[in-house]
Amino acid sequence: MPIPSALETPLLLLDEAQMQRNIDRMQARMDALGVRFRPHVKTSKCAEIVRRQLAAGARGITVSTLKEAERFAAEGIDDILYAVAIAPAKLDHAMRLAREGVRLTVLVESVAGAAALARHGIERRHVHEVMIEIDTDGHRSGVRPDDTVLNEIARALRTERGGGARLAGVMTHAGSSYALDTPEALARMAEQERSGCVRAAERLRAAGHPCERVSVGSTPTALSARALDGVTEVRAGVYVFFDLVMAGVGVCSRDEIALSVLCSVIGHREDAGWVITDGGWMAMSRDRGTQKQRRDFGYGAVCDLHGHPIEALAFDDANQEHGVLHWTGDGNVDLARRFPLGTQLRILPNHACSTAAQFDRYSVLLDGKIREWPRFNGW
Amino acid sequence: MPIPSALETPLLLLDEAQMQRNIDRMQARMDALGVRFRPHVKTSKCAEIVRRQLAAGARGITVSTLKEAERFAAEGIDDILYAVAIAPAKLDHAMRLAREGVRLTVLVESVAGAAALARHGIERRHVHEVMIEIDTDGHRSGVRPDDTVLNEIARALRTERGGGARLAGVMTHAGSSYALDTPEALARMAEQERSGCVRAAERLRAAGHPCERVSVGSTPTALSARALDGVTEVRAGVYVFFDLVMAGVGVCSRDEIALSVLCSVIGHREDAGWVITDGGWMAMSRDRGTQKQRRDFGYGAVCDLHGHPIEALAFDDANQEHGVLHWTGDGNVDLARRFPLGTQLRILPNHACSTAAQFDRYSVLLDGKIREWPRFNGW
Repeated sequence: MPIPSALETPLLLLDEAQMQRNIDRMQARMDALGVRFRPHVKTSKCAEIVRRQLAAGARGITVSTLKEAERFAAEGIDDILYAVAIAPAKLDHAMRLAREGVRLTVLVESVAGAAALARHGIERRHVHEVMIEIDTDGHRSGVRPDDTVLNEIARALRTERGGGARLAGVMTHAGSSYALDTPEALARMAEQERSGCVRAAERLRAAGHPCERVSVGSTPTALSARALDGVTEVRAGVYVFFDLVMAGVGVCSRDEIALSVLCSVIGHREDAGWVITDGGWMAMSRDRGTQKQRRDFGYGAVCDLHGHPIEALAFDDANQEHGVLHWTGDGNVDLARRFPLGTQLRILPNHACSTAAQFDRYSVLLDGKIREWPRFNGW
Repeated sequence: MPIPSALETPLLLLDEAQMQRNIDRMQARMDALGVRFRPHVKTSKCAEIVRRQLAAGARGITVSTLKEAERFAAEGIDDILYAVAIAPAKLDHAMRLAREGVRLTVLVESVAGAAALARHGIERRHVHEVMIEIDTDGHRSGVRPDDTVLNEIARALRTERGGGARLAGVMTHAGSSYALDTPEALARMAEQERSGCVRAAERLRAAGHPCERVSVGSTPTALSARALDGVTEVRAGVYVFFDLVMAGVGVCSRDEIALSVLCSVIGHREDAGWVITDGGWMAMSRDRGTQKQRRDFGYGAVCDLHGHPIEALAFDDANQEHGVLHWTGDGNVDLARRFPLGTQLRILPNHACSTAAQFDRYSVLLDGKIREWPRFNGW
């Protein structure tokens, strides 16, 4: 698709057609597995994009901050899971959102957290809807499926005098799937995520607690699960754009990455073999997510304006507003002739969530034109 | 200074009194060295902060994007150096700003860049004010002081029929000073930066070109230079806040860092020795600037609410909205008792420029209260 060459750079290019293919692929997979899909909007933080996810069949959303909950509630989305264990100072804010009509589900992962939530609800005469975070891979927070504390947490989620906390279910996120890179290992991790979360739900139910919802997911496991028996919903975020880390994990190809940073050549250092651009780490983010993968792309994969890879340009170094691309090809090349001043390049990001967060809008390639879709950031 | 415990986190805390000390320290140094000081506002992107820098004696500002130029021009600042070699697609924008009354100086570092700038000015009957970027340490872009191309660039900066480009001077940035950590090495680098830039100016003048301004700087060299003969102005940015990288370089102590991220404890993993917070990499940025220094602080240095270091908590890992602090102290500690749910911690950033850019405002500790000062991001 042609891109107007007079664009001021850096900017965040979104290929709308590719994004739609990514959305459709995930939704088709979830439909085939017979589960509800609740996209994680922390990746895009953009109403236009979330509308497309919902139009494709998603139901409800997952958020990583209460600001996301607030912004998407204002867009009319009324079923929101805040998927980070809630800090006590945020309980009033969560209650306000729920009272404005959002079905907001919050998360706890300890007896202390459950007790604080119930106490807050009882005092305010508000019933918090809550899920317990389950740890199925040891990578972050949550309760192990077989831990005796699980039922203690459920008991601490009580109601009294019209307020308190009501257990809605269990959720887990097998974030360690990001470190895998074979279909077999990913399928095993997806099954580990599923079985651990289902086991936790069964233990809670056996102890007499309600546990309607069983929520699992990450982009790699969602795209690798072979069956999801006992799971009621799946969450995934980065699939909407994909990125180099996901390509390294093996759940997409580089061609399927819908997001890139458009930058311009602003200088050359023929002696060092460098092409300098105006896309530095402020545009790419400091995310070096491919550093531990089999192929390290530095600050991103360099492509021409049409999206074709320029394998010989390695994005080795970056300053705040300077990208330093290192020519690794033919030693006799005249870089200033090959990539003249003003040449525009597209850089595929290591991690779409962090690169997108450096921008306040998407420049969307749509029907041969560029449109701007706003996104928000922060808390 | 007391911080209200009901604050929703993460937020970007700025200690106004410490920032003022940092501003005063740099200005006093520049006054003693007899040079004009032109702060780089890419660090703060905040009008309130830049006002304080100007009130202390700074004259004019340095920017890293035309958006910064535009926003600060709207605040009444009329002398702005855009310190990144300008891409051709930005020339119209630069001209618009200049025509609105800003003395905007742009940067070139090649004959092609100079010729494009002159041609644009001649066509539009606008005189671009321009400096030539000098490379005094081989770390990025610019022309070596002794390179014959220097005078070719100056010749390409011509005017005709009331438009073109006028050479205002030379500028350099010894960014490799960030990799040093002894006063002697820093003083040598400051002298290398000074002498290279002055030599370039002398060569231009000897060839009959005007070269009024000789602009050098980085925070480490500005604070390490012993004399600045021949220099007319110094630029520095991160000194306004300081950060762990600058402490590692040795130009500030950890106590002088004015910026921190306030976060809350949201969980514990006693078996792994982890305290989990709501300050993840989205709040800290992915900047791992201390990774190559003698002391690697992970994603930041953990302090209590009063700013006292908690040396035994290492900020080893981060997810988007989760910080994972690893307890490295006494093995018998009960983490949930020592750092109860909701405990607020302050994290000193590796790199103030990248951490601040994750937020849209500063929460400023000022006269015992918290005030909000907006900042902007993006392009």
